[in-house]
Amino acid sequence: MRLVTYRRQVADAASLGAVVDGQVIDLAKLGDLAGVDLPSSMLEFIDLGPAAVSATSELLDSYDGVWPIGVSTPLENVKLLAPIPRPRKNIFGIGLNYVEHVAESSRTLDTSKELPKQPVIFSKPPTSVIGPGDAIEHNAAITQQLDWEVELAVIIGTRAKRVSEEVALNYVFGYSVMIDMSARDCRRAGQWIYSKGQDTFAPFGPVIVTADEIPDPHTLDLHLTVNGVEKQRSNTKHMLFKIPTLISDISAGITLEPGDIIATGTPEGVGAGRSPQEWLWPGDVVYAEVAGIGSLRHPVVKV
Amino acid sequence: MRLVTYRRQVADAASLGAVVDGQVIDLAKLGDLAGVDLPSSMLEFIDLGPAAVSATSELLDSYDGVWPIGVSTPLENVKLLAPIPRPRKNIFGIGLNYVEHVAESSRTLDTSKELPKQPVIFSKPPTSVIGPGDAIEHNAAITQQLDWEVELAVIIGTRAKRVSEEVALNYVFGYSVMIDMSARDCRRAGQWIYSKGQDTFAPFGPVIVTADEIPDPHTLDLHLTVNGVEKQRSNTKHMLFKIPTLISDISAGITLEPGDIIATGTPEGVGAGRSPQEWLWPGDVVYAEVAGIGSLRHPVVKV
Repeated sequence: MRLVTYRRQVADAASLGAVVDGQVIDLAKLGDLAGVDLPSSMLEFIDLGPAAVSATSELLDSYDGVWPIGVSTPLENVKLLAPIPRPRKNIFGIGLNYVEHVAESSRTLDTSKELPKQPVIFSKPPTSVIGPGDAIEHNAAITQQLDWEVELAVIIGTRAKRVSEEVALNYVFGYSVMIDMSARDCRRAGQWIYSKGQDTFAPFGPVIVTADEIPDPHTLDLHLTVNGVEKQRSNTKHMLFKIPTLISDISAGITLEPGDIIATGTPEGVGAGRSPQEWLWPGDVVYAEVAGIGSLRHPVVKV
Repeated sequence: MRLVTYRRQVADAASLGAVVDGQVIDLAKLGDLAGVDLPSSMLEFIDLGPAAVSATSELLDSYDGVWPIGVSTPLENVKLLAPIPRPRKNIFGIGLNYVEHVAESSRTLDTSKELPKQPVIFSKPPTSVIGPGDAIEHNAAITQQLDWEVELAVIIGTRAKRVSEEVALNYVFGYSVMIDMSARDCRRAGQWIYSKGQDTFAPFGPVIVTADEIPDPHTLDLHLTVNGVEKQRSNTKHMLFKIPTLISDISAGITLEPGDIIATGTPEGVGAGRSPQEWLWPGDVVYAEVAGIGSLRHPVVKV
């Protein structure tokens, strides 16, 4: 399934939907009609567990594209929100997880040129999340070095504590796209949360594709453009630490919970790594895409 | 007020209480009797805003220590939980915020000997929080360098975005104690979240003292012992960046929300800074106290 969080009208409460052939199907309403209790939020749906995913997928299939009245809305008529508008804890970010990005970072930032021996973890608060199309804030009082990073996001489906790499993918609910915005000049004694955790610094969406539809998450092309000019292009096969390793490693110390998000790192081509360096400014438009999942397009605005 | 989250019996739901003369007063129950709608959780209470704090304090005073039947329980008969058992986002930790601790860290860790020019911010996930008396996990598969840090914790009361230092203390709900546990050998490329964010690494409590009872939070003695031997003793007056600066600085980029927690940094005397270095092991007991607020005592256990 391709799941979204959306509003039909500005004043509407957020709903949980599945996108089928360009239509957004309201899962709570469909559930009502089908006599199945389905929630109206993504986190509640994830909490139902893997069996609910299969059952909901089968329910959708059973309609064969003919929807009861009032259940479907054309995708172009809804306002998409971040799939999880308010994560339950900070997003886990993974730094230096593509080989070429390690090299470019060591040339221009304060990181080592050696490949990390273990995943480099940082975090982005729930308050950094914005939905598709929302504005990225540029606050010139804080930063003159606003940078882009396209990433594959992993959404955890099941509580995970000390899980092995062999079974780690069983704990994944699905995949999405995140832009890991970074104010490079806001790093503090090497810590990244302030540079990467500011409000609007986690554009997220447009959908969560459930794990059953992405049998191998390490085969996905991803790319990013600024004002239409390509800046990043790579494939998730180039990740240094693959997703099973990330889940096993984090969960060795920190319990992962349903709805937790891991942004799996960015490939080469960030602004900080260019010669001369390039930064984002108000009026710029950032576009990021992971093939098979979807794309995000965000204006940068002055605040 | 001195506010706690507690259970009367193991199977009871958590309640919100005020400690008055050794009695825990159930605020929701007292509210019921008084015809005032008071919540049963700390976060809901904080969300009510400053006026609710004053009104509740006056309500408590009006009983003059004579409580209706079923509202009070002796403090020694309840199980205290962390005052906020599940924060809404990661705890903000402040690194290198006491001058002598900057010096000891630079001698033995990978930090600079220069005083930071801006607050050094890191985070601890909600899953790291434990309540008074709960066990701190020692996982020998991950760490051989488990360390202690006593800290004053600030609880935010009102949503704060870009607030000035002059008004920043108006955004404080109250104060508590936190032990910022650290597995020094779990730092990754300088990032601290994995070393400081593991499950059980944020002992928190025993109470939140509302801000009206602590007119100057920069006059508080704090100390920590391990197995009864004093390891840290200082006063919050030695903070490098004071609380108004921390709130103003964080809120310049990251929206602070009601119930958010800032652990304001630790003074000198951590295990990593000693010669020879000292670490915690299963069987050890860590005791931390901030004068006027309270104390925490936690066993270290093998997992």
